[in-house]
Order: sequence, then structure tokens, then C-alpha cells
Amino acid sequence: MKELKIDVTLSTEKKQKPSFDNLEFGKSFTDHMFVWNYTEGKGWHDARIIPYQPITLDPAATVFHYGQTVFEGLKAYLTKDEQILLFRPDENMKRFNRSNDRLCMPELDEEGALSALKQLIQIDREWIPSGEGTSLYIRPFMIATEAFLGVHPANSYQFMIILSPVGAYYKEGINPVKIAVESEYVRAVAGGTGNAKTAGNYAASLKASEIASENGYSQVLWLDGRENQYIEEVGSMNVFFKINGEVITPELNGSILEGITRKSIIELLNYMNIPVVERRISIHEIEQAYRDGVLEEAFGTGTAAVISPIGEFLWKNEKMAVNNGEIGPLSQKLYDTLTGIQNGTKEDPFGWSVQI
Amino acid sequence: MKELKIDVTLSTEKKQKPSFDNLEFGKSFTDHMFVWNYTEGKGWHDARIIPYQPITLDPAATVFHYGQTVFEGLKAYLTKDEQILLFRPDENMKRFNRSNDRLCMPELDEEGALSALKQLIQIDREWIPSGEGTSLYIRPFMIATEAFLGVHPANSYQFMIILSPVGAYYKEGINPVKIAVESEYVRAVAGGTGNAKTAGNYAASLKASEIASENGYSQVLWLDGRENQYIEEVGSMNVFFKINGEVITPELNGSILEGITRKSIIELLNYMNIPVVERRISIHEIEQAYRDGVLEEAFGTGTAAVISPIGEFLWKNEKMAVNNGEIGPLSQKLYDTLTGIQNGTKEDPFGWSVQI
Ligand SMILES: Cc1ncc(COP(=O)(O)O)c(C=O)c1O
Ligand SMILES: Cc1ncc(COP(=O)(O)O)c(C=O)c1O
Repeated sequence: MKELKIDVTLSTEKKQKPSFDNLEFGKSFTDHMFVWNYTEGKGWHDARIIPYQPITLDPAATVFHYGQTVFEGLKAYLTKDEQILLFRPDENMKRFNRSNDRLCMPELDEEGALSALKQLIQIDREWIPSGEGTSLYIRPFMIATEAFLGVHPANSYQFMIILSPVGAYYKEGINPVKIAVESEYVRAVAGGTGNAKTAGNYAASLKASEIASENGYSQVLWLDGRENQYIEEVGSMNVFFKINGEVITPELNGSILEGITRKSIIELLNYMNIPVVERRISIHEIEQAYRDGVLEEAFGTGTAAVISPIGEFLWKNEKMAVNNGEIGPLSQKLYDTLTGIQNGTKEDPFGWSVQI
Repeated sequence: MKELKIDVTLSTEKKQKPSFDNLEFGKSFTDHMFVWNYTEGKGWHDARIIPYQPITLDPAATVFHYGQTVFEGLKAYLTKDEQILLFRPDENMKRFNRSNDRLCMPELDEEGALSALKQLIQIDREWIPSGEGTSLYIRPFMIATEAFLGVHPANSYQFMIILSPVGAYYKEGINPVKIAVESEYVRAVAGGTGNAKTAGNYAASLKASEIASENGYSQVLWLDGRENQYIEEVGSMNVFFKINGEVITPELNGSILEGITRKSIIELLNYMNIPVVERRISIHEIEQAYRDGVLEEAFGTGTAAVISPIGEFLWKNEKMAVNNGEIGPLSQKLYDTLTGIQNGTKEDPFGWSVQI
């Protein structure tokens, strides 16, 4: 891999680290950040690692008004023998560029960005926690910075990487979460931005999540925007169902995010010879499986939570329990295998882990 | 109206103003801006007018990652006798709060914000151009500022108002624009954020607009996200068709913006005894009207362009000319009447204009 030439300014003072025994998600940030600017006609320039610090932007910057922004999320793990592992980081960089294309944002030099990411983590390596379920969450993101009002793509952008030591994403940890099926609000529709990792999708999701949360549900299960019946995904996770021995996950249809954990779980299931299919699946089919007693397991997959078993679906006032609200054997096995590969305690037959 | 207590810091240096004879849209900004902060538990605080200056935000601020942001757009006009007129500003403030609700953002004190807006304009009144087709564009906006990663509403926000002296939004001015009907990309869907004025909607629209623009079209006409056939709106305008003597505009269905110009045009048409209906209308119906020779006029309505006649629709490789690509008598009359009311040269029987 080609190394990106980066100007490094180290911080003179080190921040107080949070207690690694009791980490929250995304609340504290490391000592440094990576910044890279793009200007039309000039391309990418001024790659630099600097002390973590505020960004200064014109009030008319495009990101505030027209939302041109893309982000990614991945994790670094510290192994028992103090090696640093990344999980399929090239997949995140590829998705970053797919999102950029949808948002009319400039293409990122994937190798350069990955090289920056590695250098930044090396510098802040003391911030990588090593406890069970902890990791260093990595947030690459790009924002449009040109100062103008009017709806058209900006001519200047800033790409950044920030790092945050994290614990479990859901307070439940690996315990099953309760999910409310959303029948009014819609997150994304075919032809929209659902398969891009861009801010607006998350803004659109807040209202339904807030209502679900008030009723005691961790997240919502989104249905499709056209017919309001096909299952899309959950908050920041893709979703899998085990019905009658077969694992089913919604196919990539343009409106759900192409999760890297999703892709890995499918590959893992194939490797384990467990039948898995990607296809359209309706909430009615889930309801029927529940009634027939064949809805064996359900779980979400995503970088933040890895595998999150689902213990209950709320659908039109009916509570559908899955596996008596307990984690199922497959969910547990997938969680153990995947986190094991990620943190280096299990063999990695796929070559997914990348050592820094 | 109750006056908001605002701390005022005047700029010591005045910026060079752009030439008012040749104004572009949204490229230059006045000497001052209004800023107001919201903190959960404390409410709105620190209302201030300060010199126009960059905003400083943590790289983890919610606006960059999860897109919690709302904006508005309205205009101030300078009359012949040097009075300053605003057009229905209370409607913008009401819509601001409807958008805030959808985005889980705190309610704005509408009277307070309006009072701030007026004080700011008074301070920068030298920046209001008075030439034909020019005005001072006003951009109130709110962004989420809390520094965290994780999808939930922020606990701190910043509301701002910036001002920009503007000319015509489209380089065509009042000359008809060409519009491409979009059949692949979708801007918004029922249950989404289409009727809120939030950044993500505009980010979602860029790709299709860029393709249209490459083909020589100013904007796209959006179709609905469910069936891809019902007409929604155009870029940053609502849309009206005159077919066989009757004016038709898509009904408010949750996925289009409730335009204030749209509302005013409907009221104006009623006042003029010209038949106008709000209803669902498909692209097939437009095509049929075109073939039957009864598609008499079409125009977009919005604060930026006021009335923008449409001279041609491109629909699946077919070019449908409207009124031989020329501005129609109704479009011209509505433009003259509305801009006349807005800039004080025509009588305002509705009480729409508000003097500062
Ligand atoms: C909307 C959405 N769906 C799914 C996922 C899961 O994707 P991944 O497994 O790549 O983290 C995420 C999180 O990145 C997400 O934000
Ligand atoms: C998406 C969209 N539709 C319609 C409009 C027209 O609304 P208004 O007449 O209130 O400016 C705008 C502009 O504000 C807009 O952004």
C-alpha cells in the first residue's frame, strides 16, 4: 500500500482518558484527528494529523444547508499480544466512495485514506481499550465546505477521521433488544439515498426512534417506502431472521445500507453450511412464522453492535416474542465467531482482519 | 410583538459590497449575523447579533454526522420610498417549527426569531438592493451542535440568521426554464422528510439535478416515490399547470414542501376568480394534456425564483414544449402581481407584506 504523505502536529497536552472499564459509545475522542482538504481544480491537498480540535466553517457552508456529507464507521481492536486489528477496512473505503458518488461528492483516494487512518491510530494507540466488548471506533467523514446558498454541489470539501474508545452500542450489550415495527414513518425509498451513508438518512430516522424509545423499544424496524410491508433494516443495523432452519435477510434493493457485517455474516453462514438467502421478506411473513412457531431467531448486524439479538417485535400493538426473549444459539455462535475474528482470539479463515 | 433582548456587537470594519447591478444568488453575505443557542434544561439563551464570522464546532457535532438541521428562506424588499418589506414572514417561522418537530429539534420562539430577524435587517439595511428582481435573501437555520456519535437527537443547538443580497435565482430570470422529469431518482416519499425544510432532502436531490443539468435542463420535476407517476415538485419550487383553463397543483401529501409562494398563488388565483384545484396529478395526465393541445401553461413557485415559467418538459426522451417555450399570460400576470405586492409597487389586499 502506498503511504500518504501526512504532515503531523502532535498535541502538547494529553487529554484525560475516560475509564476503560465503563465506556459509553461515542462520547470521548482521542488526542488527534486527521484532516484532508479537497478543492475543485486542485484535488486533495494538505493531508495532516493535528490535535483534536474544533472545525471552523463559514455559516453558509453547504453541509449546514444542503447536507452534502458522507461518513463511515469501523473499529480497531487490540489483541492480547498488543497488535492492532482492523476489520475489512477496505470495504468501508469502497462504501465511502459509493456514498460520495450518490451525494455528488469528490472521489476519495481509498488507499490514501486507509493509510491516514492507520497512521492516526498508531499515534493514538494508547486510546484503544482491550476489555471484552470494547474497541476503538473510527469515524471517517466528509463535509462540503463551500460558502454559498443555492442547491448545487459544492466545490470544496473536508475529509476527517476522528477516533472514540467505545463500549457496547446498546445498553443491553449482547442481551436481546426489543424492536418496534414502524408503520407510519419511512427511512428511505428506492431511488433515494438509503444505500448511502449520509447524514439525512439518520435525521429522517429520529422521529420514529424517539416514539419507539418512549414506548420502551430500543429501535425501529423499517418497512419499505413503497408498499409499507417489506422489511428493510433496523436503525443502524441490517436484520436477519431464522425461520424453520433457514436464515433470511432482506436483499440489497437500493434503499438499505449494504452492511459490511451483513456481508460477513452471510459469508460466515455459507462457510458453516447453514442455509442463508437474501430476498424480499414481508412483515406478514414474519407474523405468520411467529404464529406458526417457526420464527426461531432474529438479530441485527452492524459495526457498532456487531450482532444484536432481537427478543421481541412490536407490530400493530401485538408483541411477538422471539426465542422467549432470549439469545438463540445461532446468534450466540455468530457473535462469538465474529467478535473472535475481530479481536484476534479466533482464527480468521477469510483474511478479514488487517493488522496495522 | 414582543422584542427579543439581543446583545449587539457591531463589526468595526464594513465589508466591500458586491455590485448591486449584477448580483448572483447566495454568494455574498452582509456584515452581521444573528446567533441564538439552545441547551437542554436551559432553553434558548445568548441571543446576539455579531459580525458575520465562521462557526466553530466540534468535529463530532451532530449536524455533520446525523444531519439534524432545518432552514428557511425568505426575502426583504426595499420600496421606492425606502421602506423595508417582508413577505409573510410568520409563515416561514411556522414552517420552521413544523420542520423542527419532524427533525426532533427544539421549538423556536417564533416571535423572538422574527424580532431578531428584523433587528438584524435594520442593522444591515444598506445591503438591501433595490433594482428590479433583486432583494435581500434571509436564511434562518438551526443546527445540532452536541459532540457525540450515536443516532439520537442532540441536546444542544444553534439557531442563526444570515443575509445575502441576491439577483435572479435562475440565470434565465423570468424567461422559461426547461425541466427534466425524473424517472429514476426520488427526492422524498410519504412518511419521510419531504415536507420539512431540512438539508438531507436537498442532498438527495443533487444527483438527478446534476444529470439534468448536463443535458441542458435547469431542474428536475420529481415524481412520487411510491408509484413513480404522480407529480411532486421541482427542485426548490412547487409546480402549477394550466390545463384547459383550469390551474392544477399537486395537493399537500406529506412529501412535498408546503410552499408559501404556492399558498399565496392559490389565494391570488381564488381572488382573481381563476379556477384552481389542489389534487393528485400524474405525469401521464400532463402528457395527455400536451398531446391534446390543452397544456396551456406551467410554472414553478418559490421564494428564490418567485414565479418561474416552464417552457419545456423532457419526459422519457420526449420534449414537450409549453406555450411554444414562451412565458404565458397567466404566469406573467401572477409574476407581476406577486412581485408587485412583495416590493410595494402594487396594492396588497391580503395584508401579506410586513413593514420593518
Ligand atoms: C442504516 C445502517 N444500516 C446498517 C448498518 C450496518 O452496516 P455495517 O455492518 O457496515 O456497520 C449501519 C451501520 O453502519 C447503518 O447505519
Ligand atoms: C423543496 C422546495 N419546494 C418548494 C419550495 C417553495 O417554497 P416557498 O414558496 O415557501 O419558498 C422550496 C423553497 O423554499 C423548496 O425548497
